[in-house]
Amino acid sequence: MNLGRVIGTVVATRKEQSMDGIKFMLVRHVDPEGKETGSFVVAADAVGAGPDELVLVATGSSARQTVATDKRPCDAVIMAIVDSWDVDGTEKYKK
Amino acid sequence: MNLGRVIGTVVATRKEQSMDGIKFMLVRHVDPEGKETGSFVVAADAVGAGPDELVLVATGSSARQTVATDKRPCDAVIMAIVDSWDVDGTEKYKK
Amino acid sequence: MNLGRVIGTVVATRKEQSMDGIKFMLVRHVDPEGKETGSFVVAADAVGAGPDELVLVATGSSARQTVATDKRPCDAVIMAIVDSWDVDGTEKYKK
Amino acid sequence: MNLGRVIGTVVATRKEQSMDGIKFMLVRHVDPEGKETGSFVVAADAVGAGPDELVLVATGSSARQTVATDKRPCDAVIMAIVDSWDVDGTEKYKK
Amino acid sequence: MNLGRVIGTVVATRKEQSMDGIKFMLVRHVDPEGKETGSFVVAADAVGAGPDELVLVATGSSARQTVATDKRPCDAVIMAIVDSWDVDGTEKYKK
Repeated sequence: MNLGRVIGTVVATRKEQSMDGIKFMLVRHVDPEGKETGSFVVAADAVGAGPDELVLVATGSSARQTVATDKRPCDAVIMAIVDSWDVDGTEKYKK
Repeated sequence: MNLGRVIGTVVATRKEQSMDGIKFMLVRHVDPEGKETGSFVVAADAVGAGPDELVLVATGSSARQTVATDKRPCDAVIMAIVDSWDVDGTEKYKK
Repeated sequence: MNLGRVIGTVVATRKEQSMDGIKFMLVRHVDPEGKETGSFVVAADAVGAGPDELVLVATGSSARQTVATDKRPCDAVIMAIVDSWDVDGTEKYKK
Repeated sequence: MNLGRVIGTVVATRKEQSMDGIKFMLVRHVDPEGKETGSFVVAADAVGAGPDELVLVATGSSARQTVATDKRPCDAVIMAIVDSWDVDGTEKYKK
Repeated sequence: MNLGRVIGTVVATRKEQSMDGIKFMLVRHVDPEGKETGSFVVAADAVGAGPDELVLVATGSSARQTVATDKRPCDAVIMAIVDSWDVDGTEKYKK
């Protein structure tokens, strides 16, 4: 999974029908120090993530292993909201 | 998913038979600021995207989860046409 | 899919048995301007591509969705031979 | 698979329900010389890896082929703890 | 697939049980000129590859399509040993 920060949403009315009701979030990748890396992904939201929240994103076929995304043309999903993480014993982020 | 702009089409007469009728689009990737990143992908079109439209592209096995691409050797699909997106509360693109 | 040019072939006698009869092609990636990008892939040939031909390559599990590659340990397949493509209304390649 | 070093853990209370009980580890990638490459991944732990241990990480759909991760939205898993490796006949790491 | 050279082996006693008996090989990627590219992968060996041999590596779910790796958490497999390859009519490698 990748760490990321929710920076916005994408609106798309015309889409593959199975994607109706899926919320598309813009997520910027974040490194273990908490810095944005410059890369990003558009991910479906399976957990009700809000703006600015730190999240975990699963990609590829694993992105379809949620109730919201099963059998849908979706290659990235927010499947967890991050509370905290640590690196070498030091807390690097706490919500 | 990736954000992209449709920049052209690819014509291929000789191909795996299951790909008959699939339209191949050249899509340049676009970042959250709306700038082209330089990378691109050839994607099957599942939603009737036209030239210059901003789209979402799903890749990998998820690219086969549309009516048009099911069970086909297709690793990228346009599965939505983008109306708008915002970053940190600011609208960055509107159709 | 990726655009590429067939630059050669790879011969491998000792291999997973299911790969018998599969032809391995060296394919250099090509960008929308028709320039080689420097990266490459070894792809199974599902369409009878010849040297120097411009082709489309599908990767990942989608590379197994051809008659030739089904259920085989093959992660890249030439599934179409390119006739032409255009970018922003200008033809960039014609066979 | 990738070589990596476990550098920390990620805590996430709100997540896709099927991920309950999965431990998320921060893993920095390591090259054959044993040097960290700068890239990293958040991986589910299937083998009880501890801090600082060198591990193998499998990604993509293969990350779901463990008892712990089967059918879950998980795209990276620690599936082995490394005892040692050698390069061109020289031992580069020993636990 | 990728071209690579077997540079070593990785020993891991503690691992997902289904990986028992799988041999992990360190493989450095090689370009069509035969030069190492700097990147590498740890791949399961399905064909009895030895040190220094040039091989083909399949990744992703395709890495599970061998007798040795079926249904295992394995995302890279050596599925062929390379005898030779040519680029633009010139032989670049011969075993």
